[in-house]
Amino acid sequence: MMKYSELRKSVLDANAALYDSGLVISTFGNVSAIDREKRVVAIKPSGFSYKAMQVADIVVTDLDGNILEGTLRPSSDLDTHLELYKSFKSIGAVVHTHSFFATVWAQSGRGIPAMGTTHADYFNGTIPVTRKLRDDEIIDGYVRNTGKVIVEALGNNAPLSVPAALVNDHGPFCWGKDAADAVHNAEMLEAVAKIAFHARQLNQDDPEISDALLDLHYQRKHGQSATYGQPDSSK
Amino acid sequence: MMKYSELRKSVLDANAALYDSGLVISTFGNVSAIDREKRVVAIKPSGFSYKAMQVADIVVTDLDGNILEGTLRPSSDLDTHLELYKSFKSIGAVVHTHSFFATVWAQSGRGIPAMGTTHADYFNGTIPVTRKLRDDEIIDGYVRNTGKVIVEALGNNAPLSVPAALVNDHGPFCWGKDAADAVHNAEMLEAVAKIAFHARQLNQDDPEISDALLDLHYQRKHGQSATYGQPDSSK
Amino acid sequence: MMKYSELRKSVLDANAALYDSGLVISTFGNVSAIDREKRVVAIKPSGFSYKAMQVADIVVTDLDGNILEGTLRPSSDLDTHLELYKSFKSIGAVVHTHSFFATVWAQSGRGIPAMGTTHADYFNGTIPVTRKLRDDEIIDGYVRNTGKVIVEALGNNAPLSVPAALVNDHGPFCWGKDAADAVHNAEMLEAVAKIAFHARQLNQDDPEISDALLDLHYQRKHGQSATYGQPDSSK
Amino acid sequence: MMKYSELRKSVLDANAALYDSGLVISTFGNVSAIDREKRVVAIKPSGFSYKAMQVADIVVTDLDGNILEGTLRPSSDLDTHLELYKSFKSIGAVVHTHSFFATVWAQSGRGIPAMGTTHADYFNGTIPVTRKLRDDEIIDGYVRNTGKVIVEALGNNAPLSVPAALVNDHGPFCWGKDAADAVHNAEMLEAVAKIAFHARQLNQDDPEISDALLDLHYQRKHGQSATYGQPDSSK
Repeated sequence: MMKYSELRKSVLDANAALYDSGLVISTFGNVSAIDREKRVVAIKPSGFSYKAMQVADIVVTDLDGNILEGTLRPSSDLDTHLELYKSFKSIGAVVHTHSFFATVWAQSGRGIPAMGTTHADYFNGTIPVTRKLRDDEIIDGYVRNTGKVIVEALGNNAPLSVPAALVNDHGPFCWGKDAADAVHNAEMLEAVAKIAFHARQLNQDDPEISDALLDLHYQRKHGQSATYGQPDSSK
Repeated sequence: MMKYSELRKSVLDANAALYDSGLVISTFGNVSAIDREKRVVAIKPSGFSYKAMQVADIVVTDLDGNILEGTLRPSSDLDTHLELYKSFKSIGAVVHTHSFFATVWAQSGRGIPAMGTTHADYFNGTIPVTRKLRDDEIIDGYVRNTGKVIVEALGNNAPLSVPAALVNDHGPFCWGKDAADAVHNAEMLEAVAKIAFHARQLNQDDPEISDALLDLHYQRKHGQSATYGQPDSSK
Repeated sequence: MMKYSELRKSVLDANAALYDSGLVISTFGNVSAIDREKRVVAIKPSGFSYKAMQVADIVVTDLDGNILEGTLRPSSDLDTHLELYKSFKSIGAVVHTHSFFATVWAQSGRGIPAMGTTHADYFNGTIPVTRKLRDDEIIDGYVRNTGKVIVEALGNNAPLSVPAALVNDHGPFCWGKDAADAVHNAEMLEAVAKIAFHARQLNQDDPEISDALLDLHYQRKHGQSATYGQPDSSK
Repeated sequence: MMKYSELRKSVLDANAALYDSGLVISTFGNVSAIDREKRVVAIKPSGFSYKAMQVADIVVTDLDGNILEGTLRPSSDLDTHLELYKSFKSIGAVVHTHSFFATVWAQSGRGIPAMGTTHADYFNGTIPVTRKLRDDEIIDGYVRNTGKVIVEALGNNAPLSVPAALVNDHGPFCWGKDAADAVHNAEMLEAVAKIAFHARQLNQDDPEISDALLDLHYQRKHGQSATYGQPDSSK
């Protein structure tokens, strides 16, 4: 009998949703989620087909990466996820993809500027890019250090108000309050990455939107007094 | 019994046509239409699925935004639509989308230059971009002020000869003599936005087409003596 | 009974092939073909649906544009086609499309440089762009003058060795020894326009390929001693 | 009875896999494989439909290009393949495509820089572009000389650690330890060519990734102690 079946089920479902979103192909990318009370993390197994995945394939570890449940090897990105859970106390799930335009920004070494209201609807500021890792950080503890530079890049932003960062030379990591939310943020990240890529082709000097516009749009969808949609709507 | 069922039906049909065009996804975007005699506007409900929409879901308001018919909350962009109806006396419908290339031009802060005859077939001049809103215009009356800067940007152009404008940092608004015409203009806007985006990648300095060519093509499709198509053709 | 049914049928088939190629949408674009012996041209009717078109809808004119057979109005581009037939004695058909990347080059005012062997396989040199028409050429005889500047732009090139030109601010015209050949050239034009567009984004200064490479590839597919394919192959 | 039926079957299967990958269209592109013991090469016939191809259509030659088995003319690129087999002793198969973004890099005269970890997962360094051929190399022995400049461009790289090169003004050649591996490399080449194309639009000056990161990622997938996937996984 599985002790963490509910958490594993939510991670399985989120991996399936991620695959259906078209943001990942083959066995690439991964979703994890944390149970803060039990202090355990459930994550996709490494190099495993999204289509064949079952609840029992999801791996459960403690916050040091010791396997508690599951027989497969966890995602090779596990240590990055763990670093994020340790530093970002408010988040409940992490998603890693190689979605095309977010990856292009990451591999060009640039953060994604807030070019418009589409960005502001989901990200309350620039989506930061990490600094490039030093050789010693690559050679020893590469995956864990990837998590550390993400935390460094986010700086003073509240993790849930800018729920994504780009790993320089690599690709995006996203997070959210739960696994479904993190996958949704990964989809929105790709949408704003694509708009900003093209906007920058037309005008390299256009400034980011004003704080006033950024706040208004972000609060409209996420604030206490959201005005979008119907009053009884779930979002 | 519904008093404005015909107007609501035309708005429902135009929203369905907009959805089928691929220019909008999820619940984004909206179409409204006005009955100039009755001085009422029918508009899509806020955050509502295009697929599920029925005539009874369409909201009818007066020109001050007071709801006359319908139980749902109107589109959060209502006040922008109302400003356009008040200033552009010749138009019968308004469409708002986030169609990709028109949004890219808007979020790069640039109007769409008339690069060729495709543009001239539908828009008799540059498609203007609004100025960026000031903080005080964002904080108080944002949606209404969005309409005001569109009117300001259109300047002396006849609204039906340049039936679109780009809201800076945001996206396009289009209009037309009726709801079907406004949706068609939204489709043509995206087509010319895509061509102009790519033309500008090849040659940043190519001037806009001459007034002579602009007028000839525009009149060929829209003038009194249109020569395109068959004499008994409806377009 | 139709006098020119064979010619009309070949034009109908080529219009159908053009539509199937995806290079044209709605009622845009057109194909014509000439019977040099009878000195008559068959052309698509103006603004007419590709899907509904029948042999009897194809219009037959003499070289001055007088209608000899058919009840519909001919394509509004007829005079451009006639100019090309008068000046390019070796060609048997003309195709006009707004295929995306060829149109982008045209509306950016640039000819398509021979960036590689793909280009050389079909076009033995740069695909020229016409000069912009003067106001007097637009106001009086626009369609005919469009043909004249194409002829001017092709210069000393043999029409069948560079079977395409771009009309500045507008889009491409192609031709060939017969209607099927002209449609095939329109498809190849779009392919090389797309490659060259992207190559120019990476490197604006890369020179066109050498005459030696241009000739070798062109002759390999089109010369007397073509070496591509099987000896008994039709191409 | 066929003497080389196994080799021909592997080449047939790889050509089918190449066609299914979407990297080639019509009759373009080709795959060959070598039997090092028997010193024979099997290759796709020239200008032959991928869909209609049977084992008996695959042509077998010796390393001088003399046909040993098969009745069709071999691919017109045969001499390039033979040069690669002679110089790159470790490879078992060669693939030529005109995949879009790899061709764009080739026809812009630029090698593909290692912009990120996606590149490093498959190519342990920059993917080189050949120098442009001199006129005398084009006029006499063009296809063979194409092979020679590829070998020259690869320089001191081990062929299987950078299993691709771009022929200037033309397109990519890839290779691998066997035919399936070479086709897979052609697919990965197109993926990294597309990312690098777009990354260069955002930032022309971003340096290639560090040797430390290049090695770590390459070894993670290809080294003795690969850590990606499950321990009993085949890749």
